[in-house]
Amino acid sequence: MVTDNNFFMSLALKEAWKYQGLTYPNPAVGCCIISEDASILAVEAHKKAGNPHAEVEALKSAYYKLTNDSKILELSKSADIHTFLLKNHNDIFKTTSIYTTLEPCSHRGKTPSCADLISSLGVKKVFVGSRDLNPEAACGNDKLLACGIEVQNDVLKDKCDNLLEPYGMWKSNNFVFFKWAQRLNGTTDGGTISSKDSRKNVHAMRDVCDLLVIGGNTVRVDRPTLDARLVDGKAPDVLIVSREKEFDKTIPLFNVEGRKVIVSDNFEVCKNYKNIMIEGGANMYELSREYVDFYLCYIAPKIGGDDGLKKIEDNFEILNIEKETQDIIMWMKREV
Amino acid sequence: MVTDNNFFMSLALKEAWKYQGLTYPNPAVGCCIISEDASILAVEAHKKAGNPHAEVEALKSAYYKLTNDSKILELSKSADIHTFLLKNHNDIFKTTSIYTTLEPCSHRGKTPSCADLISSLGVKKVFVGSRDLNPEAACGNDKLLACGIEVQNDVLKDKCDNLLEPYGMWKSNNFVFFKWAQRLNGTTDGGTISSKDSRKNVHAMRDVCDLLVIGGNTVRVDRPTLDARLVDGKAPDVLIVSREKEFDKTIPLFNVEGRKVIVSDNFEVCKNYKNIMIEGGANMYELSREYVDFYLCYIAPKIGGDDGLKKIEDNFEILNIEKETQDIIMWMKREV
Repeated sequence: MVTDNNFFMSLALKEAWKYQGLTYPNPAVGCCIISEDASILAVEAHKKAGNPHAEVEALKSAYYKLTNDSKILELSKSADIHTFLLKNHNDIFKTTSIYTTLEPCSHRGKTPSCADLISSLGVKKVFVGSRDLNPEAACGNDKLLACGIEVQNDVLKDKCDNLLEPYGMWKSNNFVFFKWAQRLNGTTDGGTISSKDSRKNVHAMRDVCDLLVIGGNTVRVDRPTLDARLVDGKAPDVLIVSREKEFDKTIPLFNVEGRKVIVSDNFEVCKNYKNIMIEGGANMYELSREYVDFYLCYIAPKIGGDDGLKKIEDNFEILNIEKETQDIIMWMKREV
Repeated sequence: MVTDNNFFMSLALKEAWKYQGLTYPNPAVGCCIISEDASILAVEAHKKAGNPHAEVEALKSAYYKLTNDSKILELSKSADIHTFLLKNHNDIFKTTSIYTTLEPCSHRGKTPSCADLISSLGVKKVFVGSRDLNPEAACGNDKLLACGIEVQNDVLKDKCDNLLEPYGMWKSNNFVFFKWAQRLNGTTDGGTISSKDSRKNVHAMRDVCDLLVIGGNTVRVDRPTLDARLVDGKAPDVLIVSREKEFDKTIPLFNVEGRKVIVSDNFEVCKNYKNIMIEGGANMYELSREYVDFYLCYIAPKIGGDDGLKKIEDNFEILNIEKETQDIIMWMKREV
């Protein structure tokens, strides 16, 4: 195993993918900081809109690792961490290098700009995966260079671009992902398939989705709630794709406060939404095929059941595999 | 992400699992070396019996990383690397720490003892996952301690014990693993499923297996060769599990030189072999269930096909997931 620039960027990538689907409307971003002698000081990611950016999370961890000053651990707001670091950094970052999957932002939005912070701390070198797509946030590299910080672009660029792709889609249009849970032998029928951790992960994604798409048959048979109760989150609007428009309105999903439920035989309404999760099995897979950008598959390490995705042929590119306590979580793109 | 002792041991583990099934009759072992300030100097594994042990591979890489002396890169024999390091180490390892999934050997066998080498180089601290099961090789820790090297045992012990389990089985009896290849949707029928890299990996395993088990129906339908031609390896003996004893002897597997082919309706003959791979689908899965120690599943990231492992219910513990260029390679144990 070679511990080169790609290795450190891959740590940042791995961490960032854990939060893919959870950072909307922000991009998933990961950051790794190493010392002069290449010891790892921090590997962090952006977890949720409103939370600190990946670079700020990583600078916080690295500061603690270098100083043992636990005061910084009490801070969770980005502005507070910025202020603290600017006051207390004592030039400890002068010899560090930062690997970030995305060019540091230069825009003062909800949080101050990462490029300004990194410049003020006098970091030695910044390795960048993808360039920023957001015209408001771009020019991070220019700010760094203007302050005498070395910048190296395009480190694992393709992989970083994959990570960033949903963000690009939100910016230009919308992002649609198809999520399904299966056993190792491909079956999707029968009782609960996924672990509690996987189901919490799905609820956390529902919390930041604005539309959830599901098939009429699933609604009739499973009578689901489709909320985000496992994470105390908000329930997204629901599109039920069904030719038959009549539903028993005592099915729980119809009685979630503040939610709009749309019944339609097509996906037209999706154009009014930005972050869209489709949940389903073989039928919905086929119906939605032309609208889907990414696929998210939860695999439970068991065999059993009878029925799954069949009579369909597709090839995927695996973008990331993560094993949580029990299940495998896999992001993919369909090869076209 | 926390970069603690567990992190460095997990790098060693990850590297070692790449060679699980290939190191027979030696254990799969991984090793990570870090500097005083915790920068990663090497992550290596034992690749094949006769090749250097993981510690020697890692010390070689670390030496090169610390000195830039490329002379060591020309050496591949363990004895040569030992001799070179003992002569040229110049105390550069005095401040390094070693993470090894298995207690360093103390036995001078095909290669000199790793414990002796580490002691002579004056490494600062050794972190050990599993203790050695082999009475001839054990006492590595004692040698290290006697030379004033700090030793910390049981780092990710359970995971290291999982990695070591096939070796324990070879020592006491034999190791039987069931290998299958499937698409993401669980199907095992139709044309070639796995990538070329996966198939090469399987051939490399056949090369070190002494028995390959396969079902009679598969032999009749697929007319396989079951050799290790993709890696220029040797072909193992074959057990065809079949009630019907007559086979068309022009099927290629019957005509591989130096191979014994046994046809039987049971698995009795397995007791005469040490390292046994069963290849098959649903039928063989059920037939062999009580004999199997580990499961090895290759998942191609595509959907298609019709038929797979069905009418069976089992839960697995995932021991390792590795993504090669295209497919997923997964080692598992069945939960009992």
